[in-house]
Order: sequence, then structure tokens, then C-alpha cells
Amino acid sequence: MLKLYHYWSSVCSQKVRLCLAEKGIEWESVHIDLFTFDHWEADYVALNPKAVVPTLDHDGQVVIESNVIIEYLEEAFPETPLMPDDLHARSVARLWMYDSEEVAHSGVAVASFNVRHRPRMAKFSHAELEAINARNPLPGKQAQFMNRMANGIAQADVDAAYARLDALLDKMEAALADGPWLLGGDYSLADVALAPYVNRIEVLERPEMLSEGMRPRLAGWWRAVQDRPAFAEAFSFANPDTADPIKR
Amino acid sequence: MLKLYHYWSSVCSQKVRLCLAEKGIEWESVHIDLFTFDHWEADYVALNPKAVVPTLDHDGQVVIESNVIIEYLEEAFPETPLMPDDLHARSVARLWMYDSEEVAHSGVAVASFNVRHRPRMAKFSHAELEAINARNPLPGKQAQFMNRMANGIAQADVDAAYARLDALLDKMEAALADGPWLLGGDYSLADVALAPYVNRIEVLERPEMLSEGMRPRLAGWWRAVQDRPAFAEAFSFANPDTADPIKR
Repeated sequence: MLKLYHYWSSVCSQKVRLCLAEKGIEWESVHIDLFTFDHWEADYVALNPKAVVPTLDHDGQVVIESNVIIEYLEEAFPETPLMPDDLHARSVARLWMYDSEEVAHSGVAVASFNVRHRPRMAKFSHAELEAINARNPLPGKQAQFMNRMANGIAQADVDAAYARLDALLDKMEAALADGPWLLGGDYSLADVALAPYVNRIEVLERPEMLSEGMRPRLAGWWRAVQDRPAFAEAFSFANPDTADPIKR
Repeated sequence: MLKLYHYWSSVCSQKVRLCLAEKGIEWESVHIDLFTFDHWEADYVALNPKAVVPTLDHDGQVVIESNVIIEYLEEAFPETPLMPDDLHARSVARLWMYDSEEVAHSGVAVASFNVRHRPRMAKFSHAELEAINARNPLPGKQAQFMNRMANGIAQADVDAAYARLDALLDKMEAALADGPWLLGGDYSLADVALAPYVNRIEVLERPEMLSEGMRPRLAGWWRAVQDRPAFAEAFSFANPDTADPIKR
């Protein structure tokens, strides 16, 4: 049995949910609320020492890191393949997956903080945040947490994050000349890995990055990704906190 | 035919050379001198847009990113397997490979700069460095380059890097309770991915991190890694710049 510890709008959780949906795999949901800091609870950190979502539990065997999880799902459930047979094409897919972590994830994390994450934690007083942070399991991150909550992320850092995201979207636009998918004719883990980040960019401050005028092939790819039934399924997991104004 | 663009002491190059040596694969060397900035030349950036070593060229097909390269080699040359058959064990190997990039690479890069990299560039005047940096192909990195050359990396950042490396070595020490290798009985890409970073830590400022007294299982693992014929082969690639005082 597959159990997924995830958060409804976490990009890495969406990546794994999209892979599960494309493969038609049944799974049980354990929702981990990042904004009540469920991921810092000792039981969860014992499963996922990095204190991040998602975590996959397959018949008691635990797999973490979204890219490692989707490679695992590809090997464990090969019936609907999401990796090509050609060895060089497989390396290209892995390079996109790598970019989804190194570039896309770090970029949207920075670009999301001031406009999404920080306002949602305004419900906590300074004293409450200090009490929460006292159980921050990430060594060396306590000071950064309080500093970011107090001051937000500097605009120069946000601009640099958007610049890195722009460069990645340019690379996608170029690759899609041989589309319709990132590897060409076949939808793959490369598309699965990048889709959640494009979804997030669309609700941030610069959605024009995805416009038909600026990047026509990317805009077409993004429509085609959203048209897939698996996308609707994976992204339909609603925010269980109905008081939270963030709905996507 | 396999051609590897690499630098003799780059940790990621060593990772790929170690994989090639374990598999007994013949390859042709193209040495890219990072300290004459060969990796910023247009011809090289066309091959490797991230302007880093190594780059693998297999019969004209180019593969970049050390972890992607060793997964490619594993699939293209399966005769000497370096990945287990068990799917969960494969995910554990990939997690170690991921750590080798996210934790070990970023850690030794920071810990190496003031004591290895910066002194080796003291041969350049400020004007020469500015001329070199004018062709820095990495967007947004020009200012960081000149700032790091002028001021080095702050001690607090170096200490934080060592703290992250310490946490990773603790994780290796714990895993080696079921050794002799990181996955247990069989040497794998997990060991290949981490060995170059342990080799580097040994020549930095805190080699006691690897001592028998501090981490006995890790110390034994490191001796066993070095005893493998492939290690001697991969790490015997000497510095072609005989005027450079750095020999390891």
C-alpha cells in the first residue's frame, strides 16, 4: 500500500501526485500542514530527516526527495512508462529533473515567501513564532527563520530568483521547438517535474513570464499539461484549511 | 568513443573518473583548466551551458551533471553494476547521490575557496581578474566572483559549511553500521558519489573529521575505498600544471 505524506500546495508534493496520477496508482493521503509546522514534529522528522514534504511509504519502506520518489515510482510501476528507452534521452530527462530542484525549486521558494508564505504566518505572534522555531529541527536554520519572518526576503534576492527562473523558462522554450513535450514526442518525468513550478509562477507576481507573447511554445505546453486528466486529478487536492485565503 | 572533459582535482570530475574506473571503461581525456578559466570559453559553454566540469561525450552525444553522468554510465555499461537490483536500495543510493550534490558539494566548495582556490588565483592582478570575469558566462555571478576574490568567504559561512559536512559524515557513520559500504554489502554509486568529497575534506583544514577516534566506521570505509584499484586509477590523474603547489 502507498501512503503519501504531502501538503496540498507544496510544489514537490504536486510533482509526486502528478506522477502517481499519470500512472493511475492508488494512494492514501496523510496531509502535513506546513503552516502549523506538522513537518517539524518528531514523528515526521523520524520519517523524513530533512523535515520536508513529500514522503512516500510503500508497504513500510520509506522514500524521500521528490526526484528520488518519482524515479522510484517509475521503476516500481513501469506499466505506464514516463521515462524514454533511449539512454541519452533518459539523461536529458534527469537533467530537467535536476533543474526542477536546483533552479525552479530554489527560485519559486524565494519568490513565494514574501507574497504567500510570510502573510500566512502573520497569525502567529513573535512569541509564538519563537516557540515554534524552538523545535525547528534544521541545524543552523533557526536564525534564518526568525530573520526572514521579521524582514522578508530582500527585493534584490527576489529579482535574482526571477532572473534564474527566466533563464530556465528560456531553456524550456528552446527545447519545446522539438515538442510538444520537453523530450519531444513523449510526455515524461521531465514534464512532471517542471509542471508544478510553472503552476506556481502563474500565481506569483510575474505571470507574464508564461504568456503567449513572451514564450509561445511554453504557453502551449502549459495548456497541454493542464489538459491532461492526471493534472486535474493531482491538482484537485484542496486546501483543508478553509480559513486560509490561499486556494491555489 | 567516450571523451571526458574534466579537471584533475575537481570533485565532480573525480566522481565520474571513479565510476569509469570501477567499470573498466576506456576514455579519452580533455583537460579543462579551471584556473585558466577554460570552462568559460565559448566552445566549452556550448557543450556545457552551466560552465562546469565534467562533461561526457559518448559518440557525439553529450551528457552533463556528474550524477546524471554516472546514472548514464550505469545504464550504458551495465556489465559491472554499481546499482543494486532492489528498488528501495536504489532509492537510497540516489539519496546519497543527491546528498553528494546538495550537501557535500556546496560544503566543500565553500570550505575550499579561501584555502585552495583563492590563493591559486593570486597570480592574477585585479585588472586581469576583471578581464577574466568580463567573460563569466554565469548570469548574475559576476559581482559575487569579484567580491569573493577581494574578500574571501566569511568565516561564519565556512563554519556553517563545515557544520553541514559534519552532519553528512554523521549520517554516513550511522549508515556504515550495516557496512562495509554505504548500502551494505555491495559497493555502489553511493560510495562513488561520496568518495571524492571525503578525499577533499582530508586535505582541508579539519581532517580530524575523518579520524578513527571521531568516526571509526567512516575511517574504515575511507581506507577500504582507497584500497580499491579503481580509486588509485581515478585519482592518479596528476595536475598538468607542474608550477601549481596544489598536488592533491
